[in-house]
Amino acid sequence: MRILLPTAALLALAASPVYPQASANLAAGKTQPSPLAPSEIVAQAPKADWTAIAASDLLVMDLAPDAKGKPRRVVIQLMPPPFSQGWIGNIRKLTVARFWDGTAVNRVQDNYVVQWGDPDAEDKVKAKKLPEGLAVMPESEYETSLEDPYKAKPKPVFAGERGRGFDAYSRTNYLYRGWPVAMDYIQYVPIKDATTGRPIPAPTTRAAWPVHCYGMVGVGRDLSPNTGNGAELYVVIGHAPRHLDRNIALVGRVIEGIEHLSSLPRGHGALGFYDLAQGDERTGIRSIRLGTEVKDLPAYEYLSTESQSFAQYADARANRRDAFFIRPAGGADICNIPVPVRRVK
Amino acid sequence: MRILLPTAALLALAASPVYPQASANLAAGKTQPSPLAPSEIVAQAPKADWTAIAASDLLVMDLAPDAKGKPRRVVIQLMPPPFSQGWIGNIRKLTVARFWDGTAVNRVQDNYVVQWGDPDAEDKVKAKKLPEGLAVMPESEYETSLEDPYKAKPKPVFAGERGRGFDAYSRTNYLYRGWPVAMDYIQYVPIKDATTGRPIPAPTTRAAWPVHCYGMVGVGRDLSPNTGNGAELYVVIGHAPRHLDRNIALVGRVIEGIEHLSSLPRGHGALGFYDLAQGDERTGIRSIRLGTEVKDLPAYEYLSTESQSFAQYADARANRRDAFFIRPAGGADICNIPVPVRRVK
Repeated sequence: MRILLPTAALLALAASPVYPQASANLAAGKTQPSPLAPSEIVAQAPKADWTAIAASDLLVMDLAPDAKGKPRRVVIQLMPPPFSQGWIGNIRKLTVARFWDGTAVNRVQDNYVVQWGDPDAEDKVKAKKLPEGLAVMPESEYETSLEDPYKAKPKPVFAGERGRGFDAYSRTNYLYRGWPVAMDYIQYVPIKDATTGRPIPAPTTRAAWPVHCYGMVGVGRDLSPNTGNGAELYVVIGHAPRHLDRNIALVGRVIEGIEHLSSLPRGHGALGFYDLAQGDERTGIRSIRLGTEVKDLPAYEYLSTESQSFAQYADARANRRDAFFIRPAGGADICNIPVPVRRVK
Repeated sequence: MRILLPTAALLALAASPVYPQASANLAAGKTQPSPLAPSEIVAQAPKADWTAIAASDLLVMDLAPDAKGKPRRVVIQLMPPPFSQGWIGNIRKLTVARFWDGTAVNRVQDNYVVQWGDPDAEDKVKAKKLPEGLAVMPESEYETSLEDPYKAKPKPVFAGERGRGFDAYSRTNYLYRGWPVAMDYIQYVPIKDATTGRPIPAPTTRAAWPVHCYGMVGVGRDLSPNTGNGAELYVVIGHAPRHLDRNIALVGRVIEGIEHLSSLPRGHGALGFYDLAQGDERTGIRSIRLGTEVKDLPAYEYLSTESQSFAQYADARANRRDAFFIRPAGGADICNIPVPVRRVK
């Protein structure tokens, strides 16, 4: 007996690149080919639908090799303006100052986050010196302002309640220039200028913020009003902890090598911090560099969220009609439509 | 400088059990204590709000020890009726037949699933013999029928759009007797009996199904109409893959030791299957036993989803007002309200 799993139909499809769904459908006893799986839509997307990621927007983190001596590299893409640019400026400074070289992963909490930085940050004697001129960011910067997506052309891909974009956390969720973004609903009450009596037009921009999906990278902080300086970073390794949205700054996402972080042993201390007294061992960070500093780094690109291919991909994520599935969900939440990223071929 | 992370405020709170929030608020310069964190509500819930889990509903999986020789035990709670009982009956038979002893974890796909079973299942010569009498389940059993939650007393905790229960995947999501459950919306069109002319009452039950949250355990299957026999199981280790709901049977959840699965090395083969040719190594399963067969197994209990404590906990998950948070989300999705489970003290 052959027992497969969720996306296992894809396995049978891998051989034939053009209409790969045909063989699986025949295996399933169907006479018509079924629609493409999301991964097939991505594989067939034309080159023009992909957007290059600048090497200057990449962070390359090299962990200490694993127990077998294999290298462990994690590549992070920093968010573009207008998101979190103050913290991202700090992160660039910390990278140039080699702040993280010799620091460590200090916390791994299951279904939550992996966190890294100076393990001696709280020790006034041992703490590493921070570079000069780090910005102190206000909490207001957890949000930014973006064009009303309902007025944008082309209309972005909305994710959430049956594709209409709202969910438990916000009134709009959509994919914006390669990133998951949420926005609160604003009720447009028609108002008039008190002097002229003319109607005042509805605002064309609204408050928006990035979303804590799997793989997103954020900035650890102390209690409010502290917002973190960027020296302590974390990545989400579990179900999207969206209660953190607008409570903490997001600065990027892991685009390659997240398995080197998500598969680390969980910490035995409170909140998953490594507790050396309980036998936990920290994983060392050899270096963090900007992509422009790393020789032979591959070029990366993401599937443009404004492309026709992405719209098809998102629809297929929300309505799986490929051979394995018997009942399309009819919708998908924003973190279940991850933006495809690949090495440039 | 002290740099904390998402729930780090809790760390400072751990010392003082009764009104632990006070110290953190003083640290934050506030004069009033802030509301309790979800974990504090759970810690303070009265004993009467907890429901015992029968040992006969537990599966105890002992993996081979880790590289340091430490034992790795995973405890799974099976779902109660009316969910997936045919598959669960098979799993009990497979356990009693010692089917999994000597099998292995064969697949670890990042942000998706860990899967285990007979690695030679596809080899007609090497495949382990299945016990007699395994049920062949119909696809209709992916759903069941439950009382309309809007008519239930007490009303269950709804999770989804601003606490009103709907999201991208279904029109109702709620916590039902300890489990995350979804239901489709039914529009009650008033109709009359053709003969008597009397109004026909709206149905009091509706189609419902369990939800693929982090930690849920499901049954691997081949292409439809195959539904899997239970010999190949998987657990969710990433963002809730809810497109699998109603496409595959869920049978339980991991209540202890999930870190022994979620931190395993990811497989290098297609779909995260371990590829021995690429140096992957499977993790052996020493045994899987029913809880009733295991000596000295702790007793477990879950926070009753129908209790007042659970309602408070769910509200706090949706509206974090404890010291670390500056902006409550106003809602939570069903997989972001995990049901608390603990060892009986």
